[in-house]
Amino acid sequence: MNNLLVAQSGGPTSAINATLAGVIAQAMIQDDIDEILGGLNGIEGILQERIMNLREVIKNTSDLDRLTHTPASALGSCRFKLNNPETDESQYQKLIEIFKKYKITYFIYIGGNDSMDTVDKLSHYCEMNNIDGVQIIGAPKTIDNDLVELDHCPGFPSAAQYIATTFAELERDVSVYDSFGVTVVEIMGRNAGWLTASSALARKTGGRGPDFIYLCEKPFSTQQFLQDLKSLSHENRNLLVAVSEGLKDENGTYISETSASDVVDVFGHKDIAGTGKVLEQLIRNEIGCKVRSLELNLMQRCASHLTSQTDLEESRMLGAKAVQCALAKKSGLMVTLVRKQNNPYEITFASVPVSKVANLEKTVPMDWITDNGYDVTSEMMDYLSPLVSIDAVDHLIIK
Amino acid sequence: MNNLLVAQSGGPTSAINATLAGVIAQAMIQDDIDEILGGLNGIEGILQERIMNLREVIKNTSDLDRLTHTPASALGSCRFKLNNPETDESQYQKLIEIFKKYKITYFIYIGGNDSMDTVDKLSHYCEMNNIDGVQIIGAPKTIDNDLVELDHCPGFPSAAQYIATTFAELERDVSVYDSFGVTVVEIMGRNAGWLTASSALARKTGGRGPDFIYLCEKPFSTQQFLQDLKSLSHENRNLLVAVSEGLKDENGTYISETSASDVVDVFGHKDIAGTGKVLEQLIRNEIGCKVRSLELNLMQRCASHLTSQTDLEESRMLGAKAVQCALAKKSGLMVTLVRKQNNPYEITFASVPVSKVANLEKTVPMDWITDNGYDVTSEMMDYLSPLVSIDAVDHLIIK
Repeated sequence: MNNLLVAQSGGPTSAINATLAGVIAQAMIQDDIDEILGGLNGIEGILQERIMNLREVIKNTSDLDRLTHTPASALGSCRFKLNNPETDESQYQKLIEIFKKYKITYFIYIGGNDSMDTVDKLSHYCEMNNIDGVQIIGAPKTIDNDLVELDHCPGFPSAAQYIATTFAELERDVSVYDSFGVTVVEIMGRNAGWLTASSALARKTGGRGPDFIYLCEKPFSTQQFLQDLKSLSHENRNLLVAVSEGLKDENGTYISETSASDVVDVFGHKDIAGTGKVLEQLIRNEIGCKVRSLELNLMQRCASHLTSQTDLEESRMLGAKAVQCALAKKSGLMVTLVRKQNNPYEITFASVPVSKVANLEKTVPMDWITDNGYDVTSEMMDYLSPLVSIDAVDHLIIK
Repeated sequence: MNNLLVAQSGGPTSAINATLAGVIAQAMIQDDIDEILGGLNGIEGILQERIMNLREVIKNTSDLDRLTHTPASALGSCRFKLNNPETDESQYQKLIEIFKKYKITYFIYIGGNDSMDTVDKLSHYCEMNNIDGVQIIGAPKTIDNDLVELDHCPGFPSAAQYIATTFAELERDVSVYDSFGVTVVEIMGRNAGWLTASSALARKTGGRGPDFIYLCEKPFSTQQFLQDLKSLSHENRNLLVAVSEGLKDENGTYISETSASDVVDVFGHKDIAGTGKVLEQLIRNEIGCKVRSLELNLMQRCASHLTSQTDLEESRMLGAKAVQCALAKKSGLMVTLVRKQNNPYEITFASVPVSKVANLEKTVPMDWITDNGYDVTSEMMDYLSPLVSIDAVDHLIIK
């Protein structure tokens, strides 16, 4: 028997189940695959033998379609790093034992950076120990878009579409009063500003979009920030500002950890303020205008009612591609997307050794940030545009 | 000449422009109406003669359709209360002068409680002073659903649809790890818990929906709250909690103003923490589990990509009804929705004297809150269900 095991790991996205559906759909049409098994809560759950037969819950194409549109890891997730096999190989031995017990020939692991580290370590361990009965393949996902060796990460386009749509709507909302004010919107991304950059796509609806966009790649100066805001104060309107949660000052200190956020509650515990909240207080103290901060929070990674169709289809095909790689007896690979051209958008599906991906991070190139420090260049817009569609937000703007 | 003037006021909603589109569309087919004028930034802008010809921006039905789907007041808004005419009638005299200058026979004011106060005062002033050349009609809107004399407020169903959809998605997101934790979601509503109640509609997708729902109508005990949470700690999962921003303790003090939020920043300014944030800190301090709070913030009132179709159609028809009332030479009325039955949902359009609406507030009946204090009854579900559709969120739930 040749069974396939699939599991999910890391933070949720709106498209991670599309990849799972792609794996299942591809496995269903392969004569060389017998049972399709799901590991619950990632590698941590597999170590506890929490393994189920997926055909019991996925009975038909309607189930596959619903799964594709369900946000967040349907099989559950974990945040778990395998030990270094040189110091402790017990986890690896246990996994190999479980693979043998369940007759698992193919193992697809869907996840982000940590998950690719798991694929890398496990496939390397098998190779070193001449265990060749199991093919281990990684399928990428992460809304942060920070994995290397692929054009963009599945899950990112849907999050970008949510952010762009929401900015177009927020712009209408904050524009109703004629007075100077600031609305700061904090977007996920500790070290990579891709999601924050996608707020610029709101301009494709005909609106102004964000007035200022600050990515975490560029050192952030609060003094320059206040000057930037004041430069538009004569316009007597509410300015819309997009900021990465991971903004840092020139010393590399997170803005959320700077003195302005040095807040303690009655218990003496330090308040965990976000970057947006810190900037809100800064503006209130230093400019004194009306100010509000908001976080797109979990919604940006789970708003499945607003997924990018491109994202769902690519995610699903990457799942299928992962099964193909496993069937071709290749192990230790991650499937990838390669962009051939922008217009018309053309993509191909490929694979790379997962060792080239694990533990690395792709940030926004500095020359994709404008010289003034608060916007993105046309290269960024060309990169982002094919990934999302915000046609649903066709606003009529009177004033 | 008989011109019509329309303006908008108060906080934005996703459906307020649908009512504006309804006014314009109805005025366009009336022989008795000449020009269709828009007042910018509500009554405050009208006092400054900021009046435009709407036919210059609305040229065809496609424009009307786009306007219907555009969130937030397209004509801008204001927060402005007319003076008491007994102490100062200058604003009234100025308005009558402007109405005469622009040959305004019909004035439709779209807004919430304060706007209905304006309609009431202005129409009463005209009546007292035998000024009968202008008919003044109010058209309701407010996401809070707190206006009296109508079944539900235009704008509320769309906000409810956003909240229900988002809760269904958040439930998937917070369920991916198998450990005890709490996610507190703060929903708009200072005195009325209608929006918070609508989180229960997430259950219509087959999911569990919120584990706990606390409305601001019922005095909130933090000790009971902690006990409620602990009663489910054995389930080893992340609990989803919906709370009104306006939760108050038994003394009527807002939870956001209680000692747990007595936080000052380095400048000595009191931090303006939300109810969700205060409860997050409380849970962290008293239970010590993983906890997160989030606010649906402005998104719940401007997410036009997710409006309730029922809401848009009713809002538009109320705009048309307001024009009809004005043409019938009735002044000082607010148009309303009357529910005839739930299943199938049947509504009629009517009008009431605006004096019966202004400055009153409709809160959730106490007997629509369950005895345990943290859920809503079947009466509430029957009331809410016809207003929203969350078919888009048909999730496949594996674990």
